[in-house]
Amino acid sequence: MEKQFRFVENGSVSTPAGFLAAGVTAGFKKTGAPDFAMLRSTVPATVAGAFTSNKFAAAPVQLSRQKLLDSADGLFYGVIINSGIANACTGQTGLQTAAASCDYAARVMGVDPAQVFCASTGRIGVQLDLDLIRRGVDLAAAALSADGGADAARAIMTTDTVPKSVAVQFECGGKTVSIGAMTKGAGMIEPQLKTLHATMLCFVTTDAGVEKDLLTDCLEPCTEDSFNRISVDGDMSTNDTVLLMANGCSGVTIRRGTPEAELFRTALEAVLRELARQMVMDGEGATKFVDIQVQHAPSREDARKCAKAVANSLLCKTAWFGNDPNWGRVIAALGYSGAEFDPDRTDIYYGGIPVVRDGGDAGTPESELAGAVNGRIVEILIDLNSGDADYWVWTSDVSYEYVKINADYHT
Amino acid sequence: MEKQFRFVENGSVSTPAGFLAAGVTAGFKKTGAPDFAMLRSTVPATVAGAFTSNKFAAAPVQLSRQKLLDSADGLFYGVIINSGIANACTGQTGLQTAAASCDYAARVMGVDPAQVFCASTGRIGVQLDLDLIRRGVDLAAAALSADGGADAARAIMTTDTVPKSVAVQFECGGKTVSIGAMTKGAGMIEPQLKTLHATMLCFVTTDAGVEKDLLTDCLEPCTEDSFNRISVDGDMSTNDTVLLMANGCSGVTIRRGTPEAELFRTALEAVLRELARQMVMDGEGATKFVDIQVQHAPSREDARKCAKAVANSLLCKTAWFGNDPNWGRVIAALGYSGAEFDPDRTDIYYGGIPVVRDGGDAGTPESELAGAVNGRIVEILIDLNSGDADYWVWTSDVSYEYVKINADYHT
Repeated sequence: MEKQFRFVENGSVSTPAGFLAAGVTAGFKKTGAPDFAMLRSTVPATVAGAFTSNKFAAAPVQLSRQKLLDSADGLFYGVIINSGIANACTGQTGLQTAAASCDYAARVMGVDPAQVFCASTGRIGVQLDLDLIRRGVDLAAAALSADGGADAARAIMTTDTVPKSVAVQFECGGKTVSIGAMTKGAGMIEPQLKTLHATMLCFVTTDAGVEKDLLTDCLEPCTEDSFNRISVDGDMSTNDTVLLMANGCSGVTIRRGTPEAELFRTALEAVLRELARQMVMDGEGATKFVDIQVQHAPSREDARKCAKAVANSLLCKTAWFGNDPNWGRVIAALGYSGAEFDPDRTDIYYGGIPVVRDGGDAGTPESELAGAVNGRIVEILIDLNSGDADYWVWTSDVSYEYVKINADYHT
Repeated sequence: MEKQFRFVENGSVSTPAGFLAAGVTAGFKKTGAPDFAMLRSTVPATVAGAFTSNKFAAAPVQLSRQKLLDSADGLFYGVIINSGIANACTGQTGLQTAAASCDYAARVMGVDPAQVFCASTGRIGVQLDLDLIRRGVDLAAAALSADGGADAARAIMTTDTVPKSVAVQFECGGKTVSIGAMTKGAGMIEPQLKTLHATMLCFVTTDAGVEKDLLTDCLEPCTEDSFNRISVDGDMSTNDTVLLMANGCSGVTIRRGTPEAELFRTALEAVLRELARQMVMDGEGATKFVDIQVQHAPSREDARKCAKAVANSLLCKTAWFGNDPNWGRVIAALGYSGAEFDPDRTDIYYGGIPVVRDGGDAGTPESELAGAVNGRIVEILIDLNSGDADYWVWTSDVSYEYVKINADYHT
């Protein structure tokens, strides 16, 4: 069954049947760029969600999390998203505004307020202007269409340089099932925008019918193996949100324990992983996409610690920017990662070329090593030779542009 | 008794009686800058040490740690230090070279090889040239003097822009006790030098007589409250070493539980903290010295997590470089720190000016906030209002120069 799905050209959140989307300009961004999106299912959809674990979770995160918990049937109609203002650290007022936003959107959509989510990304500590939200809702509701996915993906951008959408399809008993998704985050800032934080937002739609528990069980490992594997700057946002909506409009119902459920999970993982890849590729100021594989660790947690330590090492990140094969920095990061392994058995490869052998210089000429880190994509394989667990992460480098993006504007 | 000590003008490791030092050029650095130091006590000295917890501890670290453990009487004569080559990730050969270096130095000094330490800083993965070590030992032994502290401090530099020495003195029963120290690390790299890692080395001398256990008991908390509080890039080296030597030449013996022991500890902490301050001030590419205080945390560990998360946040570090009062990034870092506290009670102050009140905007005008982060020194006070524990750290910003230093040269 593996990989019996295909990517859809120009696929988006509105590719799955029964989903409408729109992206409009409500006025949150001073640039006049689109900054408000609406995503709506024509029929009630089951929803699974994943949210930031940041203690300062933004008002829309708190509200959406609560709505998911409170829902008896787990059915929802849609979500509104604004970019430019995060509605984080805004206290009771912020929570009230988030609730009022959902209420207004629900009224316009003609559904129960409990069945509409909201999400925000942008500047922290500033109250949302409810009038702008209302304007956004009115404009977006009028613009909703089955071709609106691309507009929606553009409207949720903040620091991104390109919108990020994807869709896949697969066949089930003669019927076509689609999964569509859009994401934002980790991209380059517009200097006038004054966004404080490159929040990660992701909205996934599918026209498969999937009951809530199964949907949640699919989303968790897929998020773990995609978004939770990437790191641009190691900073976790107050607003990170992933929502997965399944409306059943394809006429296909996915049931637990079937080959279809496995295929659905595989396709969902491919969608999220592709978006994660696009986010790292569009990382703030990034000139490199760095793939870090750790294998033969005593445990998965040890492998994860090693991979994360290397990915988040400022010295490694700046070396990559400088096309520097500097394996000493990789070794140092592994050594302080807190992972268990035998340092004297550690091997490292860059793009398949031996760099470190048994914890020391593998003897490959510098010129050959330099060639392995010169390109846009750098592959680092760390073989601990100390067990059978593995882990991988994707990250980017730290460039002058990264510093410029994050230093050269003021709140 | 508190603070009854004074800083000595141009103080160094050779300020305490009975300590000789030298710094010479052995040839490890291609620039021809001094790269070999010797520190020697004229009589046997008790020694306490602290070493990197990096799993890839360098050969000299492994050897020195073992010598300290193996010593029956805890008495040593001195240490040799080379800069330019770290002798890390060099396997059995590296260990043998380190041992041979100590042996040669001991022979020249006329003491037992077990009583001499070695330390290295510089490029990882390259073998030390024993001939250069021998040349260094010969030159340094001939140059040893009671005025050699400044030369020694210069010879151990790698990425530092200035040498770092300090000494304090205090009176004990009519006699003067001195504590001297030198350190290196966290400084700007010389582009030709190709140092991989800004290792932290620190050598402390005192002419007080202190038995080994008391010396160790003094060193641990003083290291914790100085070097363990600072962070430039969050990367821990393979070679970090602190050695504290007490030779008793002042005629004063410090005994446990006495006011003198308390004064000694206070003075030692002042010495290490001053060196830590100098290291952060000389941090690679640093334009800011950032003092982060966390107070009223539920536990010291919670306070520590908060302080470290803010200090190591790449988004905070680049904001500081940009003179950006961006408190949203501080909040986000606190929120993902893993610390326990009530986000809605969090207050933040910059240089005493309220920035965040109860987890939200304190309402201070932007212009006033900007003034609080414009200077060379930035003071951030985070009041969690959730307990009575506190913690502080010192860190620096991340500038274009930081990226340049760490990207613009190749191994």
